[in-house]
Amino acid sequence: MDMNRDFAHPFDQAVALAPVTPERLRGHTSEDYWNMVGPYGGITAAVMMQAMMNHPARRGSPLSFTINFLAAVEAGEFFVDTELLRANRTNQHWSIRLVQGQPERVLAQAMAICAERRDTWGLVEAKCPEVPPAERCSPSEPRRATGFLQRYQFRFVRGKPFEENPDSLSHVWVSDVPPRPLDFASLTALCDSYLPRIFLRRKEFVPIATVSMNIYFHAGAEALARHGAAPLLTVAQAQAFSDGHFDHQGQVWGRGGNDHDTLLATTHQMVWYKE
Amino acid sequence: MDMNRDFAHPFDQAVALAPVTPERLRGHTSEDYWNMVGPYGGITAAVMMQAMMNHPARRGSPLSFTINFLAAVEAGEFFVDTELLRANRTNQHWSIRLVQGQPERVLAQAMAICAERRDTWGLVEAKCPEVPPAERCSPSEPRRATGFLQRYQFRFVRGKPFEENPDSLSHVWVSDVPPRPLDFASLTALCDSYLPRIFLRRKEFVPIATVSMNIYFHAGAEALARHGAAPLLTVAQAQAFSDGHFDHQGQVWGRGGNDHDTLLATTHQMVWYKE
Repeated sequence: MDMNRDFAHPFDQAVALAPVTPERLRGHTSEDYWNMVGPYGGITAAVMMQAMMNHPARRGSPLSFTINFLAAVEAGEFFVDTELLRANRTNQHWSIRLVQGQPERVLAQAMAICAERRDTWGLVEAKCPEVPPAERCSPSEPRRATGFLQRYQFRFVRGKPFEENPDSLSHVWVSDVPPRPLDFASLTALCDSYLPRIFLRRKEFVPIATVSMNIYFHAGAEALARHGAAPLLTVAQAQAFSDGHFDHQGQVWGRGGNDHDTLLATTHQMVWYKE
Repeated sequence: MDMNRDFAHPFDQAVALAPVTPERLRGHTSEDYWNMVGPYGGITAAVMMQAMMNHPARRGSPLSFTINFLAAVEAGEFFVDTELLRANRTNQHWSIRLVQGQPERVLAQAMAICAERRDTWGLVEAKCPEVPPAERCSPSEPRRATGFLQRYQFRFVRGKPFEENPDSLSHVWVSDVPPRPLDFASLTALCDSYLPRIFLRRKEFVPIATVSMNIYFHAGAEALARHGAAPLLTVAQAQAFSDGHFDHQGQVWGRGGNDHDTLLATTHQMVWYKE
């Protein structure tokens, strides 16, 4: 497998995990997805999602995934421990921890639910915003020359960072660079690619760090496969900035048939900010 | 302490916990907060929140709390295990599990973050809906003669169950019965008191069960104390019903000075439904 590493997509390299035991996988941080003082939070989340997806006992597809970030992961090797706490005919409950160092320290903890999707009455109440198609929106310049921001192409439709905005609502087309067919790990990573909402309300940069991220998946593996490698429309807005933390709630829209009208995931964050 | 049990509020009785070790507390299910086949999910969440609040090492106030419900808790004794995974100067990361039976089974798992609130630039972007004050809205009849629905008074302002509604958006005044000064445990419980959104979109009853609930707290202990025992305005709306699960996103508004304009918490759920 390692023979093909150099030809693999940077994302596949970043979430590559080697089994130590069925419950413990070994990974390595990725320079391609580096952020300022540690790995991009989205890639840490994706690695933990991938560990669960790889587990031989995993059945069904992710329904819910929540990650809390405890401390910065250091460059190098890490381990992901997955624990199947309960399984019944249709649901699985997982606990996932990323550890590093000697003595081992937990640097991220996650909980996830996998479920068999059933054909039921359904209704999408959220409305996909009307925006120009991705190919008519210009990609923004990467904000930094290296690291994870180069691994995404952003096309801002509404909400520009460090400018005057009426609110923190943003509409952004996002895609992997280079393009890569969507799966649950890459969708998980992408859920952390939202601009920090405080950058839409204040003109000066302030340090921020996501402390908790929650994802609900509204579509199964087939819908993700149907979407393929096309840009995803991401929507997000903060509800409150207070006492050093702000939230956001977001949506990720993919293509159903020919258009971008499938709600793939909704996501929420709590973010620490300085000042 | 047990001598006063009969005089205590049913909520305080329900979340009463006796230490076994600093990391393990013993509790007992409450008939007052019983739901159809097990305890009300909100009281299970509250008990786990309370266990963390009681822990001698706990510092700061809850910022984020996520609970996944693995299986029904049975009537009787249970244990809550709290694990402080990481603490730094301003943040604590907790893992909390509720177990029962012999051999022990995990029936609910939760993650929480406690933080020191800091005086910073702030902005509440969410708008509190304009609704009549609680005292001008009529309380609805309890839907059942026993159990947790008797422990809340609901005043429906927008969105009526099993009726024709344009969407699943609801505005409801909620208060503890009898009234009780708000704290983090009771606010956690109340975050599960929302009507299942599917009851606002379909006229027939279908079985439902919350599988995951997430809460972000936007206010500290002082704001909760300022609010007191007044009714809280709860707002919620679903984004999607698909493949046997639906979500909702909600807000809980409390009184700041004289009115109901303080955003105390935002909350999200994923709910299983039948058919």
